[in-house]
Formats: sequence, structure tokens, C-alpha cells
Amino acid sequence: MATRPLSRLELDDYLPYLVNRVGTIIAEQFGGEVLAEHGLSIAMWRVLAALAAHGRLRQIDLADFTSIETSTLSRLVSRLVRAGLVTRGRSIQNDREVSVKLSGKGNALVARLIPLARQYEAAAIAGLSREEILVLKRCLRRAYTNMKSRTTAAAGPRSKRLAG
Amino acid sequence: MATRPLSRLELDDYLPYLVNRVGTIIAEQFGGEVLAEHGLSIAMWRVLAALAAHGRLRQIDLADFTSIETSTLSRLVSRLVRAGLVTRGRSIQNDREVSVKLSGKGNALVARLIPLARQYEAAAIAGLSREEILVLKRCLRRAYTNMKSRTTAAAGPRSKRLAG
Repeated sequence: MATRPLSRLELDDYLPYLVNRVGTIIAEQFGGEVLAEHGLSIAMWRVLAALAAHGRLRQIDLADFTSIETSTLSRLVSRLVRAGLVTRGRSIQNDREVSVKLSGKGNALVARLIPLARQYEAAAIAGLSREEILVLKRCLRRAYTNMKSRTTAAAGPRSKRLAG
Repeated sequence: MATRPLSRLELDDYLPYLVNRVGTIIAEQFGGEVLAEHGLSIAMWRVLAALAAHGRLRQIDLADFTSIETSTLSRLVSRLVRAGLVTRGRSIQNDREVSVKLSGKGNALVARLIPLARQYEAAAIAGLSREEILVLKRCLRRAYTNMKSRTTAAAGPRSKRLAG
């Protein structure tokens, strides 16, 4: 097998590119065809889905689950509160911590959206075998934990992120 | 195997979630540790990488390759022109069409960034077998073409996008 020239990037074989375009096209279609009519952006949907999956969450954990930067997330949560879909309250463990959960109305909306979200996932993986889907999802989980452990390592005694 | 309740979404088994978090964490790390010192955002990098892979491109094709919405892309290209990294010109085939290509300076910068980009990809797929990586990438390409053909189908005589 010939070595690929270092100055060219074969995008069709480059994981970050492949991941970005799949994520974007699913988000565009689900966002435009389903979420828009409910006044939701894809980021708002991610917040609702994370709360549906995990129940009450501290904002810091919600940021982690949704991959949304904390100040953006805080504004999103405020919009969802105004829309009556989530409520903010004090954490049970620590009353200085703000936590967020779905309201009854938020729960009902998410329950209607989840089967539709699954249809978009089904459209994306159509034609793949059960085994391929398992490998695909397992590899994506591993890639995430690989990158996550890299930051944890870099956040050690002397940050390597700055030395790079 | 028990059927999953329709009202819950197991995020760790939901492809759009898995794809989004991997894409985000790689972009954050590569963006923060490498691109920032060159004054580049991840979106600007995607434009440069697409031009490095494909040569001169019409803006409409560049939008397609980068998954960046056309008006955002137009502003990004203007910034890259001002930075001296790309040039805009008339298309050879059709002189009403604007096309974009890397400048000498842009080419030199991308040539320095590509080996670093590959290091981040390598960090993400560390520990996966060669076979798993092939399946992962093939499935992501398939998922993209599945979604892409869905929009093409929906853009037929009577749009199904509105009927959903």
C-alpha cells in the first residue's frame, strides 16, 4: 500500500470529516423537517434529549452530555424555561448548584419527538448489517473516550495542551 | 431482547448523538490546541482542507464539501481572502461563476496543518483494529449517502419534507 502524501488530506478517508458531514446532514434534516415546527433548534433538542435520558441534571453535566459550551447552554436553558419545557431548581445534594429538568410539557413534547428522531437514525443506518451497526457505534464510543482521556491527561500537573 | 421504551432515548446507542460528540471533541481539541494559534476557526480549517483535497472549487461545491451553509461560507471565504490564504476568481467553465482556490501561502499553511490533523485522527482511533476502522469509515460514508439520497428523493415532484 502506497504511503499517502503528507501534504494531501483524503477527506473521504478522514474520520473528523466523515463524522462532521453525517452529523450535519442528520441535524439539518431532523431540524428542518421536524424541530422547526416546534420552534426548536437542534441544540435545544439535544438539551431536551439529554434531560429525557438522564432526568434532573446539573448544568455542568448537561454541558458535558450535549457538547454545548456552558455560556451558550445557559442561554438555551433560559429559552427552554421561557417556553415552559424545562424548569431550573436547586440541586438536592448541594443547594448552591443549579439543576435542570423537563417540565410536564417538556416530557410530553420529547415523548412525541423521540420516535421521529429514531426514524432519522433508521434512515441513516439503512442497509447496514446489525454487526456493522454494532461496530460503528462501539468505535464512535471508543473514539470519544480516547479524546476525552487525552484532555484529562493534558489537564495534569503541567498542561500539555499549551506545550503542543 | 427487551424493546426499548419509545419515550426514552438511549443516547449512548443513538447514532446522531455519538457522531455529534466525537465530532465536537475532536474539533474542540484540534481547534484550541492547533488552529487557534494560526488565527483559524474549525470552519475556516474545513474550507482550507476541502480546497487542498479538491483544488479550485465553486463556492456551491465548497459548501457541499464542508457542510457549511452558503451565506456563512461566503463570509468565511472573504476572511480567508483577507488573510491571504485563498483567492477568489472566475470559473474556467463559466465566467459568471465564482470559484475559490488556495493561495501559495494557504497551500503552505495547509501542508503544515495536515500532519497535525492526522495526529488527532490517530488519537481518536487509537486501539481500534484496522478492520474496525474500515467498517467505521465505510458505515459513516454510507450513512451520509443514505441521508443525501433522502433529500434528493424529497426534492421530487411533491416535496415529502413538508409532508412529514
